[in-house]
Amino acid sequence: KPELRLLLARLLNLLLKIEFVAQPSKFGSLWPLPQKVQISQVSFKLTGFSFNIVDAKQSSAGPSCALLQDAYRRYYEYMFGNAKRSGKNKSRRAGPTDLTELQVWITSADSDCDAYPSVKSDESCEWPLSGIIRLETFSQLIYEDDYGAKSINATSISDFPRFPHRGILLDTSRHFLPVKVILANLETMAMNKINVFHWHIVDEPSFPYMSKTFPQLSQQGAFHPYTHVYTPADVKMVIEFARLRGIRVVAEFDTPGHTQSWGKGQKDLLTPCYSGSKLSGSFGPVNPILNTTYTFMTQFFKEVSTVFPDGYVHLGGDEVDFNCWKSNPNITKFMDQQGFGRDYSKLESFYIQRLLDIVATTNKGYMVWQEVFDNGVKLKPDTVVHVWIGGRYNDEMSKVTAAGYPTLLSAPWYLDYISYAQDWQNYYKVEPLSFNGTDAQKKLVIGGEACLWGEYVDSTNVTPRLWPRASAVAERLWSSKDVRDVNDAYNRLSGHRCRMVERGIPAEPLFTSYCPREYRGV
Amino acid sequence: KPELRLLLARLLNLLLKIEFVAQPSKFGSLWPLPQKVQISQVSFKLTGFSFNIVDAKQSSAGPSCALLQDAYRRYYEYMFGNAKRSGKNKSRRAGPTDLTELQVWITSADSDCDAYPSVKSDESCEWPLSGIIRLETFSQLIYEDDYGAKSINATSISDFPRFPHRGILLDTSRHFLPVKVILANLETMAMNKINVFHWHIVDEPSFPYMSKTFPQLSQQGAFHPYTHVYTPADVKMVIEFARLRGIRVVAEFDTPGHTQSWGKGQKDLLTPCYSGSKLSGSFGPVNPILNTTYTFMTQFFKEVSTVFPDGYVHLGGDEVDFNCWKSNPNITKFMDQQGFGRDYSKLESFYIQRLLDIVATTNKGYMVWQEVFDNGVKLKPDTVVHVWIGGRYNDEMSKVTAAGYPTLLSAPWYLDYISYAQDWQNYYKVEPLSFNGTDAQKKLVIGGEACLWGEYVDSTNVTPRLWPRASAVAERLWSSKDVRDVNDAYNRLSGHRCRMVERGIPAEPLFTSYCPREYRGV
Repeated sequence: KPELRLLLARLLNLLLKIEFVAQPSKFGSLWPLPQKVQISQVSFKLTGFSFNIVDAKQSSAGPSCALLQDAYRRYYEYMFGNAKRSGKNKSRRAGPTDLTELQVWITSADSDCDAYPSVKSDESCEWPLSGIIRLETFSQLIYEDDYGAKSINATSISDFPRFPHRGILLDTSRHFLPVKVILANLETMAMNKINVFHWHIVDEPSFPYMSKTFPQLSQQGAFHPYTHVYTPADVKMVIEFARLRGIRVVAEFDTPGHTQSWGKGQKDLLTPCYSGSKLSGSFGPVNPILNTTYTFMTQFFKEVSTVFPDGYVHLGGDEVDFNCWKSNPNITKFMDQQGFGRDYSKLESFYIQRLLDIVATTNKGYMVWQEVFDNGVKLKPDTVVHVWIGGRYNDEMSKVTAAGYPTLLSAPWYLDYISYAQDWQNYYKVEPLSFNGTDAQKKLVIGGEACLWGEYVDSTNVTPRLWPRASAVAERLWSSKDVRDVNDAYNRLSGHRCRMVERGIPAEPLFTSYCPREYRGV
Repeated sequence: KPELRLLLARLLNLLLKIEFVAQPSKFGSLWPLPQKVQISQVSFKLTGFSFNIVDAKQSSAGPSCALLQDAYRRYYEYMFGNAKRSGKNKSRRAGPTDLTELQVWITSADSDCDAYPSVKSDESCEWPLSGIIRLETFSQLIYEDDYGAKSINATSISDFPRFPHRGILLDTSRHFLPVKVILANLETMAMNKINVFHWHIVDEPSFPYMSKTFPQLSQQGAFHPYTHVYTPADVKMVIEFARLRGIRVVAEFDTPGHTQSWGKGQKDLLTPCYSGSKLSGSFGPVNPILNTTYTFMTQFFKEVSTVFPDGYVHLGGDEVDFNCWKSNPNITKFMDQQGFGRDYSKLESFYIQRLLDIVATTNKGYMVWQEVFDNGVKLKPDTVVHVWIGGRYNDEMSKVTAAGYPTLLSAPWYLDYISYAQDWQNYYKVEPLSFNGTDAQKKLVIGGEACLWGEYVDSTNVTPRLWPRASAVAERLWSSKDVRDVNDAYNRLSGHRCRMVERGIPAEPLFTSYCPREYRGV
């Protein structure tokens, strides 16, 4: 097996050894590729001294729009670094081929400056030289000519995403990720037009979410009650940082399984397991037969619904282990009373059903992992079913959409699974709508998420492991279905990865190569 | 296949889910484990205010030994951070159980302060409470008690490495690694008692070594002639930084294959390939039939031998592709003249033989990859043969040692091959002397090297990919053969990895867990 690997590696190296520098694509380093783009030969120069990003006269948003002003500053810095406009140079006149102004024209009546993005946000834009374009796309069109001068070619773009939900799951329970690391990755999501941060905030190993209603949850359940928690202010900061970049924050509080850490700070929440006729001392999933459980969940999700402004909350529901329930005589008695027989998925459904009713009172939509659907739990028609189990995921996509539910795909995009060589190509080649189904079924697929589970990642390696591998998913979910040329993607993505590096993000290399300006951290 | 991977992952998670915090080992977080160590229950306190590292009266080295003074400062900082000795606290008296002094007693007549480490350096040490110990080991014995007070238990240690050559290969050709990144990894090597930095400095993709004799090599062959080169000052700094940490720098200049980048700045060095009867425009390995080749090599290796003070230079010699040689009619003619028939390994041997003669005149020993031995090239008896081909490496170890050559093992330690989950355990379980052979043969194994080839790593990800995976190799090469308990290793290595993180190195996690002080970078 090592020999095979070596052979494969050598072949790979042989195949790719001729050119170590990516060939230019006719689309430069645009990523993800816009729906329609035509780059002309006519080029303009830009300088940090004379360039301005301004609100167009007709724009419905102006200087009072913090979101826009924040974006202007961010993209000015991306484009020109920290080039100062010194007094001396202020008087420099713009040359005849200088591009000196980008007018931002917000056309929607509601300028949305203070609102949160939602799955229904209009993300389309036109840029036939005048008009508007996403600032990220504009910044990606800028290149340096041989003299290092910033240039941009006249370009016509019409752009909108193929899917409205383009997410990344980060897991802050298996390892705690400092807020700084989360923000850096939100920044990078924006560079990739990812618009959902799926925050898998708690799980078995630790409960870093600091609850105002139940402070004992993190006090007892976090790796450390002070250094390894997200305070209310942290959570607020993450949400606002994301909002300013058009990113939704969908929090996941997974129950009834994956809850060991909940049990430490909330007495009687988990099912006590038995060993024969005695309590074993260990605990299983949430105890579904106690009224106190539902009282707790009502209060807890009431808090969650106010802390997280997004229209959706992810309720988990995956991988419920029935062994502890089976061992507990009180559970058995309850099963008999309810007429569940020995079908524990009925008990699971009983719990989830009540939980969904609770969450419904908060006026939130909800997402669940596929098992909740598989087990036949009654769901609201707009429940988003999240498909994650590898292998036959196309069958599952068919089933879920046939049942009429909005569907989210993650199964082929488990980025925690690493392997030698360019696995981004596998993520890239996925076609989310390749399952058997009617047009109406396909329309139910709202998008997908790249998942980076936390067993083997923390702040030391999460960022290079995520980027640019998640960029492959980002383009698959944004660009047209027929954008599938792996060679062209390699070339654009190489440039895109160096751009992320230049913006301070340690995005790892695709293959033997170099960036003009390498990453300067350690 | 994804389903299987998921299943395996779930099993792993299930097996390991109970405890997310590593259990303490009776050896704390010592890594690599010393040959003999006994930690007593008697503990002493240390404070940065009162603790001193001093030269013992009897020591043969003193304040004039820059190497020692540099180490004192480094370890003081590791142990106490930047705790200042303010005026007020200077007067604080040491408590009755305070350990206030570490006496460093160098016993060798030659204090070796200005010498370079060599494969024959004596690395053994004794520490029966008085006497000496490696500073790294001392620093690893320090822990924080419940009040955060630095403490150390009375400990008896006798230590020496099992193998004298414990190396790490970094590849600066496939991606350029900034000097800062190399230094950070040298620092980490010292924390792991790795004592050889095998600098695979040039290869096909780029030639970042700036040669004083042949400046065109990097001018033309580097990814960039200014930003992606190692200047003479850079190389000197790397060597001195390594020397101060007891690390040898063995440079590799691999020929006759892997030399595409050499050809750009040195006319006629490479073999021109033919397509039929015409020059194809591409080039193959070094041209072995021209006298100019050997003139060049003589001058080049003369420079190398003065720039790199180590007693050994690595000459490569792996993976020579014969296709270009076969295509070239002048080569064919030469083969006929020499009576080589069509056996191109004879031509390879002809080249290597002459190269070895050239290098021999510089009074350096040399190392070569195993193919040079496999092809029957006549070697000096002290040539180190480097075994790298996976699969049947034990057979190769038998053969090489049977022929009487010092041998270095890398085959099972190709860290560029990544896979899901805890692959460090595979590296750890390797027994370098498990091949068939006599005791005399086994004594020829001087050690091994973990190799991190550069196809998929650059400054964005090299450090977390190397550590703590290379730490597994470090312990295998340092500690006693019977130190093989993977659970105990997991516990010690978890602590060791957090210690590396605390010292500013982004060493990645082994599994779900946390460090008291997480990595603060992005």
